[in-house]
Amino acid sequence: MKRDIVIHEVGLRDGLQMEHRTVPIETKVAWAGELMQAGVDILQIGSFVHPEKVPQMRDTDELFRHFAAAYPHRRTVLAGLVLNEKGLERGLACGVDMFCMGVSASETHSRKNTGMGVDEAVGRITAMARTAQEAGKKVQVSVQSAFGCGYEGAVSPARVTDIVAKYLEAGFGNVSLADTAGHATPGQVEELFGAIRDMDARAELTCHFHNTYGLAMANTWAALGAGVKYVESSVAGLGGCPFTRIAGGNLCTEDFVHMLQRMDLRLDLDLATLIGTARSVAAFFERDLPGAVYRTGPIAEPRPAS
Amino acid sequence: MKRDIVIHEVGLRDGLQMEHRTVPIETKVAWAGELMQAGVDILQIGSFVHPEKVPQMRDTDELFRHFAAAYPHRRTVLAGLVLNEKGLERGLACGVDMFCMGVSASETHSRKNTGMGVDEAVGRITAMARTAQEAGKKVQVSVQSAFGCGYEGAVSPARVTDIVAKYLEAGFGNVSLADTAGHATPGQVEELFGAIRDMDARAELTCHFHNTYGLAMANTWAALGAGVKYVESSVAGLGGCPFTRIAGGNLCTEDFVHMLQRMDLRLDLDLATLIGTARSVAAFFERDLPGAVYRTGPIAEPRPAS
Repeated sequence: MKRDIVIHEVGLRDGLQMEHRTVPIETKVAWAGELMQAGVDILQIGSFVHPEKVPQMRDTDELFRHFAAAYPHRRTVLAGLVLNEKGLERGLACGVDMFCMGVSASETHSRKNTGMGVDEAVGRITAMARTAQEAGKKVQVSVQSAFGCGYEGAVSPARVTDIVAKYLEAGFGNVSLADTAGHATPGQVEELFGAIRDMDARAELTCHFHNTYGLAMANTWAALGAGVKYVESSVAGLGGCPFTRIAGGNLCTEDFVHMLQRMDLRLDLDLATLIGTARSVAAFFERDLPGAVYRTGPIAEPRPAS
Repeated sequence: MKRDIVIHEVGLRDGLQMEHRTVPIETKVAWAGELMQAGVDILQIGSFVHPEKVPQMRDTDELFRHFAAAYPHRRTVLAGLVLNEKGLERGLACGVDMFCMGVSASETHSRKNTGMGVDEAVGRITAMARTAQEAGKKVQVSVQSAFGCGYEGAVSPARVTDIVAKYLEAGFGNVSLADTAGHATPGQVEELFGAIRDMDARAELTCHFHNTYGLAMANTWAALGAGVKYVESSVAGLGGCPFTRIAGGNLCTEDFVHMLQRMDLRLDLDLATLIGTARSVAAFFERDLPGAVYRTGPIAEPRPAS
């Protein structure tokens, strides 16, 4: 247990989409290259949304084409988020290895994001997932707002397990539960992932936590204990809203890897490179980002004189 | 399990001792009063050290005298840290309910702090603990640098369990393991506290974590799972070094209580008052402190417009 943890880096997608300062494509290429070199297993490099809606993601197709050509024998799985059939079509045309797609467990969140209720959205997502799978692609299906919703508040576990049951019935066993609003607690994490393991012990579970209320790392630890293998995280803890002082970013990648390596896990990952990328990202945005280790340095490194 | 969690607030001691801006005694009285009103179980209001060594703690005796007189029927246990016999004598004279004292598991840290090696320090502490107990006081004995040392690096678990065995043999079962340098990982926490529970299932265990590398909450969750009941934390996450950007403060009290209450635990505590105190502390020091919830507000509270 807790041995084969897979790192799914989402900073270039979930992290950057909150940032208003546009990151030039050369910079994204440099960061993504470093993250691949550091050994992250899955690299989510963008989402296929309308470029006018999320200008930060306007170069997603170009990035995939670049990396598919530059690294034909890559070890890293290149992942992209798709919200609809149009996005899937774009992704299939530009070299995406793994498609991430999902629905919200919150009716309000679902309607705000997609214009569809939850049931309709599940049907659409499983159809899209099938198309991607038939094209030979990896697929990850997710439930957003799985632990609570910024609009609706509490989300009943049954709503989440109902959606997951439909995914599993449709043959999609790579399931992510995303704590979009940062509401999850470790107790809830153990219960909900435990319930899904009880439904299908072979399901490959992914967790996705935000640190809005300071619980991302504790929730991740609880998730690992509940059998989760795939962990989504963001370099430097990117992903908070840059205009408030609220640190709502994703679980911080290099802090998580630092913890794992202190437990003799994933020693194959190049922590120094991850820290270097985190420092570049913080320098680019000219502000402190939530990560701890990129500022302190790892424990083995001598402390900088203060 | 995880039901009877006891909150031991250490912000006025471990938090303030790192701060160079002196907090006037009226301000400490106000904060301590609020923390008591919020329902913290144990309130560590200072340490008995030489006032020239730690000027921030120069009013410790006066604070204890004030609270012992002002709240003769208090529910809150007033705790003080003592390093030596002189401090114990002062504490016995001014109304301390509970004496906290300990040794470092790191030979270097022990010699730097006390001039004594670990073995000698253990003998001295157990003698002091006995004096306090005979005076009718509660006693908590601790092992500092239990999970790693800023000077020595790794600390072997056997060094820690040897010290704890001596405490238990001497009849002191209220044992705290302190992660002074912030080096602990959740795996290590489960192992070390588990080993102590195996030594004596009736031991009352306390954890004390710093968030230097982003792991304080995850370590605390792991500790609760390993049978720890007493949790030391600091309002607003005070305790980092104010002159670096390194967030090395204690586990943040109100973030921890917010998590507990989201799990229907410790609903008797007044979170709004804790958050109010955290905001006063941040306003006093005129900088953002590490806590998340005092900035975001609790989940039940509507978000401020951004």
